[in-house]
Amino acid sequence: MRAIVATEPGGPEVLTAADLADPVPGPGEVLVDVAAAGLNRADLLQRQGLYPPPRGASDIIGMECSGTVAALGDGVTTEATGWSPGDQVCALLAGGGYAEKVAVPVGQLMPVPAGVPLVEAAGLPEVACTVWSNLVMTAGLEHGETLLVHGGAGGIGSFAIQLGKALGVTVLTTAGTEEKLAFCRELGADVAVDYHQEGPDADWVAVTRQHGGADVILDNMGAKYLARNVEALADGGRLTIIGLQGGAKAELDINALMRKRASVIGTTLRSRPPEGRRGKAAICAEVVAHVWPLIEEGAIRPIVDTTFPMDRAAAAHERMSSGEHTGKLLLTV
Amino acid sequence: MRAIVATEPGGPEVLTAADLADPVPGPGEVLVDVAAAGLNRADLLQRQGLYPPPRGASDIIGMECSGTVAALGDGVTTEATGWSPGDQVCALLAGGGYAEKVAVPVGQLMPVPAGVPLVEAAGLPEVACTVWSNLVMTAGLEHGETLLVHGGAGGIGSFAIQLGKALGVTVLTTAGTEEKLAFCRELGADVAVDYHQEGPDADWVAVTRQHGGADVILDNMGAKYLARNVEALADGGRLTIIGLQGGAKAELDINALMRKRASVIGTTLRSRPPEGRRGKAAICAEVVAHVWPLIEEGAIRPIVDTTFPMDRAAAAHERMSSGEHTGKLLLTV
Repeated sequence: MRAIVATEPGGPEVLTAADLADPVPGPGEVLVDVAAAGLNRADLLQRQGLYPPPRGASDIIGMECSGTVAALGDGVTTEATGWSPGDQVCALLAGGGYAEKVAVPVGQLMPVPAGVPLVEAAGLPEVACTVWSNLVMTAGLEHGETLLVHGGAGGIGSFAIQLGKALGVTVLTTAGTEEKLAFCRELGADVAVDYHQEGPDADWVAVTRQHGGADVILDNMGAKYLARNVEALADGGRLTIIGLQGGAKAELDINALMRKRASVIGTTLRSRPPEGRRGKAAICAEVVAHVWPLIEEGAIRPIVDTTFPMDRAAAAHERMSSGEHTGKLLLTV
Repeated sequence: MRAIVATEPGGPEVLTAADLADPVPGPGEVLVDVAAAGLNRADLLQRQGLYPPPRGASDIIGMECSGTVAALGDGVTTEATGWSPGDQVCALLAGGGYAEKVAVPVGQLMPVPAGVPLVEAAGLPEVACTVWSNLVMTAGLEHGETLLVHGGAGGIGSFAIQLGKALGVTVLTTAGTEEKLAFCRELGADVAVDYHQEGPDADWVAVTRQHGGADVILDNMGAKYLARNVEALADGGRLTIIGLQGGAKAELDINALMRKRASVIGTTLRSRPPEGRRGKAAICAEVVAHVWPLIEEGAIRPIVDTTFPMDRAAAAHERMSSGEHTGKLLLTV
């Protein structure tokens, strides 16, 4: 099969097409003919050699895809799982998406939500599983609460805003340009704050506190925002950190956390085990049950920025690095 | 009524007996004739002027007591609450325990567990509510998990060890002397590590990791232990910090937290609101339902170090400062 490989750690230019042996589905796995793969920020880190795949996972980059079931591995039956060759699916991957074929644990296959084109479905698994697992399964976000989403115009952020509104939550968000702020408001954000501006209206801590503080914060900045995020939390608030774009180590004011009875939670989706109560299969099952209906009824719309042919993966990585995109970047086979 | 007041912020010597007006129970409150009050570490901070009581609470030190219902305030009826004058109770207080009488929100009254003498019951509300609310309601400790309790020989620690064992949890603990380690083992701790010793058997991080890491850590040290506690957590672990005896600010390695999908939670019982899902009344109700039966069947035994007459509060504070006590210190009226 054709696949995109990083010939060595480096910039987008190290991504090149290669002919590799087809993957063979192991016990409990399904082989998928890939239609499209979604890009994620972690892909850039993996390309640079900074984010090795979990043990046992493919070396090929790519944490989500859509496509068609090609074959069922040992122990996977249509009777038990409902999947047959020819079914259109999307899938959460530990790796291997930038390729014509990929082997996937059967619990990480999901149907394509009704009304979503097959290619676009490639951009759903990571955002849907990340946002649902963090906001609902981990942080326990509930109707009537207040959510602060950092980077509201990105793939995760734009999905989190929409899910928040669908759950009946007040959604505050930050973004870096007027255009992105307008996009966040259009998605339903109640308040969008420009983190580049100066002045009281641009102080997201102050704005959040005016709204009573955030019950949940979804953060991709890590160290740079840690102290301000703790300041912005409401009593009983949960700060969920899923990215380290602002660094990994910062001083934590434990006393401030105690006074608010608040928590700081770090998570990655990729490191979760396939099975178990909070494993990938459990998350996929909840996403199909709770998030797919919201997509099918139009409460959440998948947002695609640009679709590139897979052999232009380098250009797609460059666009993601630029930060100019709004919504998902996809690679098509 | 007679009460103990701190004449100015300072050492134990500022605690003196005074005659004050009797408290009047407000709407929703009950007046209790105090039999005994329990000491807590926060009492020492309040005496030093470092821990002001929550707004609206009594200025008098004392966060728990036992005694007899003396009068019901407006809106409190025996029909609705089951409480009548003459009933023996213990209570979680926002303050006011070091006195002959105290007014208590009715939701914070609890019956005295069968078999526990009235005076000893004064030492139960803070430990039982702190340990249950943190380990079970906040950290979600479950049967089969591993719990690390720091300071296992103290009031909170000794209770946490026993509750952990009653819940079917593997309990590791730290303490500072051979005598205290033996005490922790006698309470049921599976492993007790001397944090003063050198060498591999005394490295509580290494010992905890040998047991697969801690699913829950109950910590009273704060900053000093933050990095090591994160290191000792299992995947999905919850570090619950309830004390700052080792300082309030320390560097947090967010990346380490993310890799483990772990959380750092800070809480105080005193700052919780009386009502609400995680409020004091809700905690007291769960404690009566789940912890009192464990005390009544002998799975958890209240541990009293020393009982002082209330006008010897200064001596009781000195004993708590010394760190030599094992179990609760009580003041009797």
